[in-house]
Amino acid sequence: MIMSDSKALYIGHVLLNGEYVNVRMEHGVFTGVGKDVKPEPGDEIFHSDLMKNMAIVPPFYNMHTHAAMTLLRGYADDMELFTWLNEHIWPFEAKMTADDIRIGSELAVLEMIKSGTVFFNDMYWNTEVTWKVLDRMGIRGCMGVTLIDNIGEERIEASFDVFEKYVGRSSRILMSLAPHAVYTVGEKLWLRAVETVRKHHAFCHFHLSETKKEVHDCVKEHGLSPVRWLDKLGVLGPDCIAAHVVHVDAEELAIMKERGVTIAHNPISNMKLSSGFFRTKMVIDSGCRVTVGTDGCSSNNNLDMREEVKCASMIAKCNYGPEILPVDMAVDWATKNGAEAFGINGGEIKVGKVADALLIDLDNERFVPCYNFNSNLVNASSNEAFNTLICDGKIVMKDRKVKDEERIIAEAKECCKKWMK
Amino acid sequence: MIMSDSKALYIGHVLLNGEYVNVRMEHGVFTGVGKDVKPEPGDEIFHSDLMKNMAIVPPFYNMHTHAAMTLLRGYADDMELFTWLNEHIWPFEAKMTADDIRIGSELAVLEMIKSGTVFFNDMYWNTEVTWKVLDRMGIRGCMGVTLIDNIGEERIEASFDVFEKYVGRSSRILMSLAPHAVYTVGEKLWLRAVETVRKHHAFCHFHLSETKKEVHDCVKEHGLSPVRWLDKLGVLGPDCIAAHVVHVDAEELAIMKERGVTIAHNPISNMKLSSGFFRTKMVIDSGCRVTVGTDGCSSNNNLDMREEVKCASMIAKCNYGPEILPVDMAVDWATKNGAEAFGINGGEIKVGKVADALLIDLDNERFVPCYNFNSNLVNASSNEAFNTLICDGKIVMKDRKVKDEERIIAEAKECCKKWMK
Repeated sequence: MIMSDSKALYIGHVLLNGEYVNVRMEHGVFTGVGKDVKPEPGDEIFHSDLMKNMAIVPPFYNMHTHAAMTLLRGYADDMELFTWLNEHIWPFEAKMTADDIRIGSELAVLEMIKSGTVFFNDMYWNTEVTWKVLDRMGIRGCMGVTLIDNIGEERIEASFDVFEKYVGRSSRILMSLAPHAVYTVGEKLWLRAVETVRKHHAFCHFHLSETKKEVHDCVKEHGLSPVRWLDKLGVLGPDCIAAHVVHVDAEELAIMKERGVTIAHNPISNMKLSSGFFRTKMVIDSGCRVTVGTDGCSSNNNLDMREEVKCASMIAKCNYGPEILPVDMAVDWATKNGAEAFGINGGEIKVGKVADALLIDLDNERFVPCYNFNSNLVNASSNEAFNTLICDGKIVMKDRKVKDEERIIAEAKECCKKWMK
Repeated sequence: MIMSDSKALYIGHVLLNGEYVNVRMEHGVFTGVGKDVKPEPGDEIFHSDLMKNMAIVPPFYNMHTHAAMTLLRGYADDMELFTWLNEHIWPFEAKMTADDIRIGSELAVLEMIKSGTVFFNDMYWNTEVTWKVLDRMGIRGCMGVTLIDNIGEERIEASFDVFEKYVGRSSRILMSLAPHAVYTVGEKLWLRAVETVRKHHAFCHFHLSETKKEVHDCVKEHGLSPVRWLDKLGVLGPDCIAAHVVHVDAEELAIMKERGVTIAHNPISNMKLSSGFFRTKMVIDSGCRVTVGTDGCSSNNNLDMREEVKCASMIAKCNYGPEILPVDMAVDWATKNGAEAFGINGGEIKVGKVADALLIDLDNERFVPCYNFNSNLVNASSNEAFNTLICDGKIVMKDRKVKDEERIIAEAKECCKKWMK
């Protein structure tokens, strides 16, 4: 769905960290960022109707989601995690076809592009379908092949096959194995998953210590909390992205720091399902790398990273005082910490970094006045101000238009009719 | 700033509570809502580029804000209430001119219109300036004349004069006296305020039990909590809108219910300033009328009622379980309960009600799929889906365009230069 195909792109006069600069990118990386940068012959010169006054920032990294679940937006609200999963979500998913997953993934990627997200860390079924959607729609991601014991040997083998088939195939689309959680995956599958991941220098993505019940049941079964049990198995390492991480103590966080695990904080899902508040102060004090994710649309019910990071910040302030999680740290959580976790040389607008950028309309009312740009971005803005999204040096949204959006919306509406009550 | 001036407006084929209807309005009230409603000769027929697929809903009531403080958006973040007020907000405000307040009010009304708000309950200085902005820009409000002891006798007299001059002048723009809080207003001024309000059948708007410190200091000074002290003075009644109401017990809520006080819940401000979480369960159990407000832009930092009510709902679920505050109740808090509090025959799309309406683009990705419209509205949407706003039978935003917006943005930017650090 790439809108521009020329090899180099030049953007003149955009606000970056309080100064107006020109930006040039070529072969997917920034080749010039500064006042004296000029276009070269043959460059595509970026022009927007709103180009009068724009800021350039690193786009968001959504570090935990289930993209295709966008088809379940609003399907089951106002209930706790296990009822919600067992009685609503899993029966719904049992009826999903591969083509439904394609449609749900397209809808999710469309929503993410429109809300300024350039990367998502996914965990779902029919991974190859979402891989192809992402390949076509032009943003980044890490596609997680879900592993759960009770899907049976055959599907587990097929899952490893999919992982092996797609891992290493694209620098834009990374691969992970995603053992769902300690309550759905036993020791054998955990070990095989991390062994496979490490063989391929890929990633491991899972839910961790999301609810009190999960921790309680794990202690009952294994005599250890989820963090301690996974550490004992040798699962935890710098290739791990652990989502939620609500019910942990300082010692467990020290283990995670030691192992280099990245935490994906999902404040809205944790509230909506009544899982609990993130222990922001203890996590910051631990020195762990923190990132932010929206979780799937059935527990949120959108994929809006701006809203997510505002909630992360506000809840932290209510629980730990207004000085905690200052806005620049919140922006890092939502952007460059995600890039760092995946070893992507991105998350910043700098020469040599991958050419991902979000252009923001500074004439949008939410950015007026502008004493503190990051404060407006996190605490005041809405997606309407996100004018243009660039991934890998290519424009994927321009003046808020994304290729194929009418077709994606129409297909999603049609496809969901079978679930209407 | 009214865009349409014909006396009757007809809107064909819009989704209302799951069914497509036609809607007609005349002289500021709905005169027809149903499948068989037809336009009459001379009616303006509403047409939008997006008219293919729209829903019609009651717009939001922002029940506690300080509109002109939009000029302070992002000026001082990440600090607690008293430092924030004393060292940043009040010194800033000391430099505000009447024209700054006009500009700030226009910016606020613009932002509220663009986020689907049709009414705001204001509390600020130079009330007549904001009154005139509202008169011109076409939405509803209740303009609160702020009273604080330490502004001195002369300004207090002038404040009562402004109230007396504007009260009863418009059915669209109501008036209140706004004794700021128990820690800034003494017995004499509280009594004079409520006596004046009651003589004119107007309203009384104040901050109440926002912080622990406020409660502690009030008990120390008066031997009673803020709710009990105000009740002893005879302040509390059905004409009172009390903002925040965080640090209260069940007995105090029973007093407020008995007196008919309306609560304006401000979840984001309470989090950002670390004031505390609203006691949602206790408040619902009390039977008090609950509404929602954004507070001013310096403690939020926007005026987005959709975001506010989502936060109210998510926090409640985290603190009290996922079943609390179901989405239809959340919508009532953010819409018709506000109308009810002010005796406005509105907050619903029904024949005979005031003709206020928000038209929502159902082809926006946040409304796809649509198993539960209210869930999408509260939990998923963003202001970009709010296509058209109608107040009192007149269009104030059409296809997301508001009259004068470029001029308002330009003036606000220019005006705020003097506060840039």
